[in-house]
Amino acid sequence: MGDLQIIDEVGHDAADRLNGHLAEVKELIGRSLEAKKFAYCPYSKFRVGAALLTHDGTVFTGCNVENACFCLGICAERTAISKAVSEGYRDFKAIAISSDMCEQFISPCGGCRQFMREFGANWDVYLSKPDGSHVEMRVGDLLPASFGPEDLKVKKSNIMNEF
Amino acid sequence: MGDLQIIDEVGHDAADRLNGHLAEVKELIGRSLEAKKFAYCPYSKFRVGAALLTHDGTVFTGCNVENACFCLGICAERTAISKAVSEGYRDFKAIAISSDMCEQFISPCGGCRQFMREFGANWDVYLSKPDGSHVEMRVGDLLPASFGPEDLKVKKSNIMNEF
Amino acid sequence: MGDLQIIDEVGHDAADRLNGHLAEVKELIGRSLEAKKFAYCPYSKFRVGAALLTHDGTVFTGCNVENACFCLGICAERTAISKAVSEGYRDFKAIAISSDMCEQFISPCGGCRQFMREFGANWDVYLSKPDGSHVEMRVGDLLPASFGPEDLKVKKSNIMNEF
Amino acid sequence: MGDLQIIDEVGHDAADRLNGHLAEVKELIGRSLEAKKFAYCPYSKFRVGAALLTHDGTVFTGCNVENACFCLGICAERTAISKAVSEGYRDFKAIAISSDMCEQFISPCGGCRQFMREFGANWDVYLSKPDGSHVEMRVGDLLPASFGPEDLKVKKSNIMNEF
Ligand SMILES: [Zn+2]
Ligand SMILES: [Zn+2]
Ligand SMILES: [Zn+2]
Ligand SMILES: [Zn+2]
Repeated sequence: MGDLQIIDEVGHDAADRLNGHLAEVKELIGRSLEAKKFAYCPYSKFRVGAALLTHDGTVFTGCNVENACFCLGICAERTAISKAVSEGYRDFKAIAISSDMCEQFISPCGGCRQFMREFGANWDVYLSKPDGSHVEMRVGDLLPASFGPEDLKVKKSNIMNEF
Repeated sequence: MGDLQIIDEVGHDAADRLNGHLAEVKELIGRSLEAKKFAYCPYSKFRVGAALLTHDGTVFTGCNVENACFCLGICAERTAISKAVSEGYRDFKAIAISSDMCEQFISPCGGCRQFMREFGANWDVYLSKPDGSHVEMRVGDLLPASFGPEDLKVKKSNIMNEF
Repeated sequence: MGDLQIIDEVGHDAADRLNGHLAEVKELIGRSLEAKKFAYCPYSKFRVGAALLTHDGTVFTGCNVENACFCLGICAERTAISKAVSEGYRDFKAIAISSDMCEQFISPCGGCRQFMREFGANWDVYLSKPDGSHVEMRVGDLLPASFGPEDLKVKKSNIMNEF
Repeated sequence: MGDLQIIDEVGHDAADRLNGHLAEVKELIGRSLEAKKFAYCPYSKFRVGAALLTHDGTVFTGCNVENACFCLGICAERTAISKAVSEGYRDFKAIAISSDMCEQFISPCGGCRQFMREFGANWDVYLSKPDGSHVEMRVGDLLPASFGPEDLKVKKSNIMNEF
């Protein structure tokens, strides 16, 4: 009996944690949807919003900022991350991404995946739809066989002195 | 006599305006110097800070955020501007830039000049040194014969329908 | 007996194909190693070479081309691909990548994965070491849940007309 | 008489040089117009071509290569330059740029100006129209108060050891 009760309590705790997590995710996706409204995208007309959750609970939002020279624009995810870094944050828990696509979960481009990867492979990315539904992935899953800052240190030590 | 007095007053006004302007510039450069301390630049070890003044007096700061894939990093100026855009601002008065170089005024890269140009050619750029001394330039002076959003509209209408 | 002979022949054919494939891979990796010698990388001192095989057997090589503004450099893979496109090619079979790292297979950055993805998800990427050993991956494996040109068409049709 | 004859000859020589230069420019612009036909620009529909003349007379052509993630595309000028570098060239005399705009001379973006600047400030850029008419500028004129590889060396020595 005692054992069952314990298990029951554990079950309650797990459900609470799950609900707490889902509420947190929904909240972050909501922030990314709001951020989308500031998107500057006169060329693609494709609005993207992002909301980045730091280790201490602070949220930084971002949107895409395009340029007449297309290749000089900045994605929503990179805006949010560079914004956080510029305020002293480098430790992230999750990032939510949203767009206007109703039938597809918005996914980060390869450039943004590498930009996320710079700050670790073990944090969450929530790909969402405007109705708030989402898919959860880890940065490391989005960029398999990736390299990051720690690899570059290894790399340098191995380079033959040809320069 | 009256005329001279008027001229004198005008002179005072002009001097006041100049002093007011200089104080504003020094303040903005100070903010860019502070922003520099958050620079994430493990690869170049070259810290850059930026402070962007919007039309309503709000200041957004930025720093460089580098990446293990060098070409995916973001400059301090672009961080500050995308940050402001992500908070609803697109109308800028000036941007101050600072670095650790004591003998040279830090100048924006061509990519950042184009990123500034997207939001107009007629606003100020202050290239500074750590001691607060600076050079004032206009975005348009830094990027002569440039093209911006308005040109792309013209351009498109002229393209032959070959696609 | 006849059946066994047929199986034997099939086995021979499969082995021949495998050997043929391996010879092709080694050849391409060899070309990427040669390409590495033209790398312009005064900032990272990290040389990278790439060799791109097109559908008709033509090979385009590339190297990294860095810039004093780190974020304006171009990776070896992107050099090779843009080179091929500028000569009329858009249909690729494989790309080999090589660096000076002896203990690690060089892997493409996220930006290059997206640049490859533009031209399809079903072609090969050979991550190599200077001794010629390698790992084979598909573009799609390197960028799971990616989006490409076809998605952008879908996307646009779904955007609410808010602009 | 003798003097006049000499002046006359000098005049002939100068005119010959000018004609020779113009023929060279026209030839390079022609190559950039041809290069434009390979442009991969499904997003902007804005075709750009470039032709780069190296110190030994070799010409490398380039076109823009766009990406579904707009900011990962590469301009025509950068394609041509990275192509040349990947074949061992780093010493350039001139680059011609062309587009489909009939009423405007196509001008390089800030990113490309910085990419050119990496290889010197004293070489020519020809901004052209489809009819072959053009404007001549120097890299240094297109990017005033620029910094290049030599500055970064200076810079590094001046950085305070705070890292
Ligand atoms: Zn992105
Ligand atoms: Zn810059
Ligand atoms: Zn890359
Ligand atoms: Zn460009």
